[in-house]
Amino acid sequence: MQPLFDSFLFGGDWNPEQWPEETWERDIEMLEHAHINEATINVFSWTLLQPDEGEYDFATLDRIVALLVRHKFNIVLATSTAALPAWLVRTHPEVIRTESNGRRHVFGGRHNFCPNSAVFRALSGELASRVAERYAGTPGLKAWHIGNEYGGGGGMCYCETCAEAFREWLRGKYGTLEALNRAWCANFWSHTIVDWADVVPPVEYGDGIGTEKSVVSGLLMDYRRFQNESQLACYVNERDAVRRHDAATPITTNLMGTFKDLDYFAWGREMDVVSWDNYPGMDTPASYTAMCHDLMRGVGGGKPFMLMEQTPNQQNWFPFCKVKRPGEVRALSWQAVAHGADTVQFFQMRQSIGGCERFHGAVIAHDGTEDSRVYRETAALGAELARVGVSLMGAEVHARVAVIFDWESYWSLEGCVGPTAGFQYPQEVHRFYRALHRRNIPVDIIPSTTALAELKRYSMVVAPVLIMAKPGVGEAIEEYVRGGGRFVTGYMSGIHDEHDLVVPGGYPGPFRTVCGVWAEEIDALAPGDAIEVRLEDATVHGEIVASIMHLEGARALGVYGGGDFYAGTPAVTVNEFGQGRAYYVGTPLDQAGMDLLFGGIVDELGMESYVTPDGVEVSLRHCDDGRAFVFVINLTGLAQTVALPRLATGRAVLGEACDWESCDLGPYEVRVVAVG
Amino acid sequence: MQPLFDSFLFGGDWNPEQWPEETWERDIEMLEHAHINEATINVFSWTLLQPDEGEYDFATLDRIVALLVRHKFNIVLATSTAALPAWLVRTHPEVIRTESNGRRHVFGGRHNFCPNSAVFRALSGELASRVAERYAGTPGLKAWHIGNEYGGGGGMCYCETCAEAFREWLRGKYGTLEALNRAWCANFWSHTIVDWADVVPPVEYGDGIGTEKSVVSGLLMDYRRFQNESQLACYVNERDAVRRHDAATPITTNLMGTFKDLDYFAWGREMDVVSWDNYPGMDTPASYTAMCHDLMRGVGGGKPFMLMEQTPNQQNWFPFCKVKRPGEVRALSWQAVAHGADTVQFFQMRQSIGGCERFHGAVIAHDGTEDSRVYRETAALGAELARVGVSLMGAEVHARVAVIFDWESYWSLEGCVGPTAGFQYPQEVHRFYRALHRRNIPVDIIPSTTALAELKRYSMVVAPVLIMAKPGVGEAIEEYVRGGGRFVTGYMSGIHDEHDLVVPGGYPGPFRTVCGVWAEEIDALAPGDAIEVRLEDATVHGEIVASIMHLEGARALGVYGGGDFYAGTPAVTVNEFGQGRAYYVGTPLDQAGMDLLFGGIVDELGMESYVTPDGVEVSLRHCDDGRAFVFVINLTGLAQTVALPRLATGRAVLGEACDWESCDLGPYEVRVVAVG
Amino acid sequence: MQPLFDSFLFGGDWNPEQWPEETWERDIEMLEHAHINEATINVFSWTLLQPDEGEYDFATLDRIVALLVRHKFNIVLATSTAALPAWLVRTHPEVIRTESNGRRHVFGGRHNFCPNSAVFRALSGELASRVAERYAGTPGLKAWHIGNEYGGGGGMCYCETCAEAFREWLRGKYGTLEALNRAWCANFWSHTIVDWADVVPPVEYGDGIGTEKSVVSGLLMDYRRFQNESQLACYVNERDAVRRHDAATPITTNLMGTFKDLDYFAWGREMDVVSWDNYPGMDTPASYTAMCHDLMRGVGGGKPFMLMEQTPNQQNWFPFCKVKRPGEVRALSWQAVAHGADTVQFFQMRQSIGGCERFHGAVIAHDGTEDSRVYRETAALGAELARVGVSLMGAEVHARVAVIFDWESYWSLEGCVGPTAGFQYPQEVHRFYRALHRRNIPVDIIPSTTALAELKRYSMVVAPVLIMAKPGVGEAIEEYVRGGGRFVTGYMSGIHDEHDLVVPGGYPGPFRTVCGVWAEEIDALAPGDAIEVRLEDATVHGEIVASIMHLEGARALGVYGGGDFYAGTPAVTVNEFGQGRAYYVGTPLDQAGMDLLFGGIVDELGMESYVTPDGVEVSLRHCDDGRAFVFVINLTGLAQTVALPRLATGRAVLGEACDWESCDLGPYEVRVVAVG
Repeated sequence: MQPLFDSFLFGGDWNPEQWPEETWERDIEMLEHAHINEATINVFSWTLLQPDEGEYDFATLDRIVALLVRHKFNIVLATSTAALPAWLVRTHPEVIRTESNGRRHVFGGRHNFCPNSAVFRALSGELASRVAERYAGTPGLKAWHIGNEYGGGGGMCYCETCAEAFREWLRGKYGTLEALNRAWCANFWSHTIVDWADVVPPVEYGDGIGTEKSVVSGLLMDYRRFQNESQLACYVNERDAVRRHDAATPITTNLMGTFKDLDYFAWGREMDVVSWDNYPGMDTPASYTAMCHDLMRGVGGGKPFMLMEQTPNQQNWFPFCKVKRPGEVRALSWQAVAHGADTVQFFQMRQSIGGCERFHGAVIAHDGTEDSRVYRETAALGAELARVGVSLMGAEVHARVAVIFDWESYWSLEGCVGPTAGFQYPQEVHRFYRALHRRNIPVDIIPSTTALAELKRYSMVVAPVLIMAKPGVGEAIEEYVRGGGRFVTGYMSGIHDEHDLVVPGGYPGPFRTVCGVWAEEIDALAPGDAIEVRLEDATVHGEIVASIMHLEGARALGVYGGGDFYAGTPAVTVNEFGQGRAYYVGTPLDQAGMDLLFGGIVDELGMESYVTPDGVEVSLRHCDDGRAFVFVINLTGLAQTVALPRLATGRAVLGEACDWESCDLGPYEVRVVAVG
Repeated sequence: MQPLFDSFLFGGDWNPEQWPEETWERDIEMLEHAHINEATINVFSWTLLQPDEGEYDFATLDRIVALLVRHKFNIVLATSTAALPAWLVRTHPEVIRTESNGRRHVFGGRHNFCPNSAVFRALSGELASRVAERYAGTPGLKAWHIGNEYGGGGGMCYCETCAEAFREWLRGKYGTLEALNRAWCANFWSHTIVDWADVVPPVEYGDGIGTEKSVVSGLLMDYRRFQNESQLACYVNERDAVRRHDAATPITTNLMGTFKDLDYFAWGREMDVVSWDNYPGMDTPASYTAMCHDLMRGVGGGKPFMLMEQTPNQQNWFPFCKVKRPGEVRALSWQAVAHGADTVQFFQMRQSIGGCERFHGAVIAHDGTEDSRVYRETAALGAELARVGVSLMGAEVHARVAVIFDWESYWSLEGCVGPTAGFQYPQEVHRFYRALHRRNIPVDIIPSTTALAELKRYSMVVAPVLIMAKPGVGEAIEEYVRGGGRFVTGYMSGIHDEHDLVVPGGYPGPFRTVCGVWAEEIDALAPGDAIEVRLEDATVHGEIVASIMHLEGARALGVYGGGDFYAGTPAVTVNEFGQGRAYYVGTPLDQAGMDLLFGGIVDELGMESYVTPDGVEVSLRHCDDGRAFVFVINLTGLAQTVALPRLATGRAVLGEACDWESCDLGPYEVRVVAVG
Repeated sequence: MQPLFDSFLFGGDWNPEQWPEETWERDIEMLEHAHINEATINVFSWTLLQPDEGEYDFATLDRIVALLVRHKFNIVLATSTAALPAWLVRTHPEVIRTESNGRRHVFGGRHNFCPNSAVFRALSGELASRVAERYAGTPGLKAWHIGNEYGGGGGMCYCETCAEAFREWLRGKYGTLEALNRAWCANFWSHTIVDWADVVPPVEYGDGIGTEKSVVSGLLMDYRRFQNESQLACYVNERDAVRRHDAATPITTNLMGTFKDLDYFAWGREMDVVSWDNYPGMDTPASYTAMCHDLMRGVGGGKPFMLMEQTPNQQNWFPFCKVKRPGEVRALSWQAVAHGADTVQFFQMRQSIGGCERFHGAVIAHDGTEDSRVYRETAALGAELARVGVSLMGAEVHARVAVIFDWESYWSLEGCVGPTAGFQYPQEVHRFYRALHRRNIPVDIIPSTTALAELKRYSMVVAPVLIMAKPGVGEAIEEYVRGGGRFVTGYMSGIHDEHDLVVPGGYPGPFRTVCGVWAEEIDALAPGDAIEVRLEDATVHGEIVASIMHLEGARALGVYGGGDFYAGTPAVTVNEFGQGRAYYVGTPLDQAGMDLLFGGIVDELGMESYVTPDGVEVSLRHCDDGRAFVFVINLTGLAQTVALPRLATGRAVLGEACDWESCDLGPYEVRVVAVG
């Protein structure tokens, strides 16, 4: 597709307001030497721009922008509303969020506004408007960046303003108290609501069980939906303010992968381009990072996205922060591109000397020179992106497999009180995704409510732990399979309806017919325990839960082993349904189990797949003209060998020519080959 | 004795108010098919019954009752006061409890009232009165159920209303500040009280150390006593309201075994029949459950009790909830009966689809059919209880051994700041109890202040970790032993007086003479460490603490091994005192050690005992006519073998005849034999 | 030097106000039998002394003092202000501290005043004044004891009074908001302050990240400095009040070793004599205790100090409290003396029967007799101190090695958000100290701002994790090394300036030239991971972090092993600089590594050193007349052997004569030898 930008943006956050002005020019020169062509600015300058309610001062920002223009930098310009000024909290204490314990914050931190605060909406909108009015049309301005990492301040707001707005929201949604009480099953523990004023947010000192669960889970689900919409309304408010002054420049805000609190599919619909911040930890598998990229691309409707932030070296906020190994940042950058990124941006250009992020890596580190390993690696990456990047832009990922990611199932699964506290939603999605990634099968990540017509584009649709089946989802899946699709789901799926009420009649509810199984009971395993599953000729293991199932037309692919009373009963099943097949995985299989299961499906579908060593990834982006780029990336610190004979006919775009029958990859080595 | 009910109640909680009315009749039919004859209703319906302060509406409850009457169900009717209506919290915010952190709750949860709230007392009493007035005399009404699981809402109330009432309570108890200061040793850290208004509940932001300890422990002890009495007064208030309308039907509330916050011996005195909720976790030993049953029977003065709740399948509130294995619920039900239960009731009849308990097992599960394993097992159990249950009712447990359980020692032991944080009171009681249970010795559990005349009914009295020796207790025990009794106590016993002050003069204070030992020091062991004890010819181990003791007339049965400075000194002693003997166990012995010690005492007393495999229990209930029922229950998931030749002459009541010289028991198998 | 006291004080806290008056005389007699000659009194009696705001009552204290005078006891007299009276909190709620969560305490606990409370300052000063006025000149009065364990109540105060005083303090320190914003790097996350009123203490619900970190770390550092000064002002306020009535008697307060919140070097300057409370836990190495003694001596400018408290038996506040082994308290007492203590005092004389410390050991235990092991050991210790103690008093420790301990680096290092959460400042100081202790090298502990002239007294200066290099420190160290000194520093040193801002230009900032290395990156290791270091011919290990370094004139003594990308690069370096040498330790070396490194330096310097088994300590105190006492102490429970032939010519002061070529030491054995 047509790329959004005319050049490959390589750069990231630059915060010159933390430094004496006389140092700025030198920064820019050093960045230019590293082939950096973009600066993201004005992310945290609200107080400088507006030192008092009625007073605005753009002098410093004017000089920063002028410098960048002079150097022909591309600019991503933020609205600066992600951290409240101290004076604003002092003069309007209600502008800041209130924790689940009922404590309203005082000044401090960031991402800390109450999303329903009228004063926040007014002042942030006004600031965005003034910034846009002043800088629209600036040469090199490539994108507007609204706020920053919405919701990253530690949780939802529970203040009285939010409570009141929530009551209105409920009234709009349900109309009558009867409908509300029914949706919430509110007669449980006499939680019946007789007046809208009775509704209290799910605070820890009320109906909340911690912050992730609630006695009445419908209350929590609705509060999460409401808070998501409230945050989104803050974004839309600023976006619209900007758009009034600039009709064309793309507008975005930076997302955070599998961040729980916001339903990014809803956000993606309001963004011109998705951008996101990729911060894998030292134990994050390459496949998890890949999944996040695919999710973010999915949120953007499949279009290329911006890698708005990554670190050029170690992070600072993990308890233990390893430095990035030589080549590691390069490999991660190319992984992002391989999954659809059309920019490579960092946080940040120059390392802070104060503030809690001062031990976070930067292109220009505390030594302040071009001598550091990090600077040199960045410059080398910049050089190769300058050479290769533009040709890739707009190229698309073509996937025949879709994995469903559903934020409401995320909230619902982790909100269950029983049968186990062992689930983390994204980890369970990753459990299925990993088996596809290991075979280098391209994957799209889609919302659960994807229309049948869209589903039909895929040979396989995977729905891990899709505990909430919203209206129409069961029907669409049935139709999809009937028409020849492969559907894979399993434990904990199909249990709740859109109100987080159990669908009566036996699990997996709306997927029971298509899967041809009844999961009568869900046994929980103690932490560390595993249950044997005999799958084909192998013995693999499940953990966390084991669904105790009855075949209702399906055939057992695997059965439980071990000595428990349900040994010998089905653990993994397949059901021939119409022209297609539906698989049900009764227990969270280990990697070997998932590999075996998905290997079979992939083979049966005749999908092209390459099994590569763990952490070695082969990806493709397809250009409109039929050409494609193949990315072979070793995301490990060890030497690896791959056999990819089909690449023999390709043209080495990055890396020297090699023998693809047996190609050695050094640690973090990247190869890009043009084919077709 | 004469049974309280005319039939064996088999049923439990039914919450039709959560369901459309058209489903009720079908529920009842399904329950009837499972031989269920009882429904506990109206537990959580306050808002439905009283949608506003001046408005009552019994229409729904009328229809529920009418349906049950039509089906000749037995009814346990609750007063519905265990969960505050949202409107009541909205209109009277002070009605709800305040946490130890000073935060008053908002609406949510259950068991959440302030027990000293005047409005709660008035409205709950009024509701109980109206319910009783309306439904007294209902056919099948078997018992009134006041509130529900008192105190189960997460802790004591620390609000200003409670504080003020507490000051009055103290004034009544102590009369003068001099007496108060002396009882609290209040000059410690200058905690001297010069005005009653100075007294502050032991909140976390005051004198509390967390919620379980306090700088001045006398303050915490008195606050616990006061809160216990306050909760009890709420029960009594409703009970009396009911009794005004119904002179005869038994009144109860459901207790919770070893629940810490309430002194159930005080509660038992106010209840016509004790009922309780038995929820063993997946690691709870059968002996611990047995101990709880015996404790609950003891709280009821030895009379048969009601098993008001247990789950027909997995619980939901543990972090990891295993499904109950086939036969397990049956075995647990019969274990309850063996220990004195005259009912078997479940929570609940139909599984909720909303609310935080929706993953808690139910007779009718989410599938809603009679096809589930749980339903079928319940029905089978119902059939056999219908056949056998009535004949057992009123039969008594005859015990020659008493174990003392003392709630104030519970609070005191777990309130100690030093010498170890390693103690959980019920686990230490169980440590002694288990050795008796393993030999299938019937045990009564009694309060520490049991009169000498009562003590004399027992051949052995065991007082584990009886850290608080209330006035007269030492004297009674001395007299008991002098007259020929066996007394077993040990580490951490006899240290505190009724004010939680150390009894000066050397541990174990009032038990020093009778035990003939002085425990000079109490050494603490690190977690995971054990100390060798050479007991008779065996080497066993102690943990947590080791008392360093001097013999003062006693004889050492065991000495410490290992290389520490007190190796070779007494670890376990016996003292010949009058006609009896007193044993002192200096360290928490492991199972082998306790088995050896109690084996010797039991043999010396010539008590009948059967050593059975762990988890296999043999119990007796005695009828007035001299007959007895012997219950042989395998509470494990493994096959077991027992030799009980004395049962050869009995008549198999449950289970087929077998060779009692070597009887195989399948997993969870139950056999009942009538003898005598 | 001239000793401060005319006799060796042996005694400690006595709290007769907790007991009936008729027991006091007997206590004193028992104490006399144990050779106890001192009582510390009136520590927690505020309410008794002042039962209401306008009312004072010294009658009880008069009688206590009279009794002690009659028995010719030495007296340490406290001002009784360390625990607020309940009535004072009731009448002036703002007198008590507010937690980091914004919750103001109610009555309870101790050490609980707001240090900026005007009413506290006024009333505590008034009480101190009245006590001093009344008891100045009392025979036997040896010292005034202000408050007690300042800061030990659980943290800093965050109330509005403190906030307001903090703003004034900042205004005084910085003068302008421009200076404040620059010092705090406040444009980070738009934390720019536009009005002094914007400043909020680093509360958890503001800028604090827990209580130990903050978004703007300069805010936290300044708040810590401000709170330290506020507490110190409370001490000074009372001290001055006492001094007005007593011109000569030494005034002290008891410190707590490596307690974090107070900068004891500032306190030491305000104290006539340092006293401290030594409470090693069951796993505390002897070397750590030694370090604490040296630190306390250093805080007092090298003068002998008072061991104000230790326990005669087990503590009570650890989760698991072992009894002290036979001889252990004696060994700990002599260790204190060996490091400079001129008193041996206990908490406490008689064991409380109430309050949270009732399981804390005491000379007279709960048994109340002279028969207990603890009593007998105390008496034996008293006898030998009575015999030997006076001759040691005033003798000094002579050290050629100094270790820098810097409270601001303590706060700064533990305040870092990244690169690791693995550091505890005192443990890292101990990591270096231990290597010296193991060779029995006497050590002085000094502040980081010690003047060059003072530094020059030492052959070696060690600066572990000196993350904050205050102005002049780098210059002084350079000059010190240039003049021939040995300087040892390493990982995490030299990173921050006095504002907690990173010193730009490359780590270790001001130590880069002298050390001749540039530490480009700091890699973090996962917990439990270790990195190989090849040091001389040995393989040792580092943990937590590894500095990745470039030699800039230095020579590598050790290089990293293992397979990581910086294997083979320098891990430990030495730089010849002027006449001296500077060592840089790039990673926290294990004990073997530190031993090897320091062994080399010590040998090179030709320092006298004795390697003794772990836990066996050889120390010296030097008298003005040239004589010295050598203390050989086995601080372990095992038999040990040492070879100290140089002691052959000495005179056994404690312990019988022995063959010093191979001297066996029993568990906890102590030998004192006079030499010279």
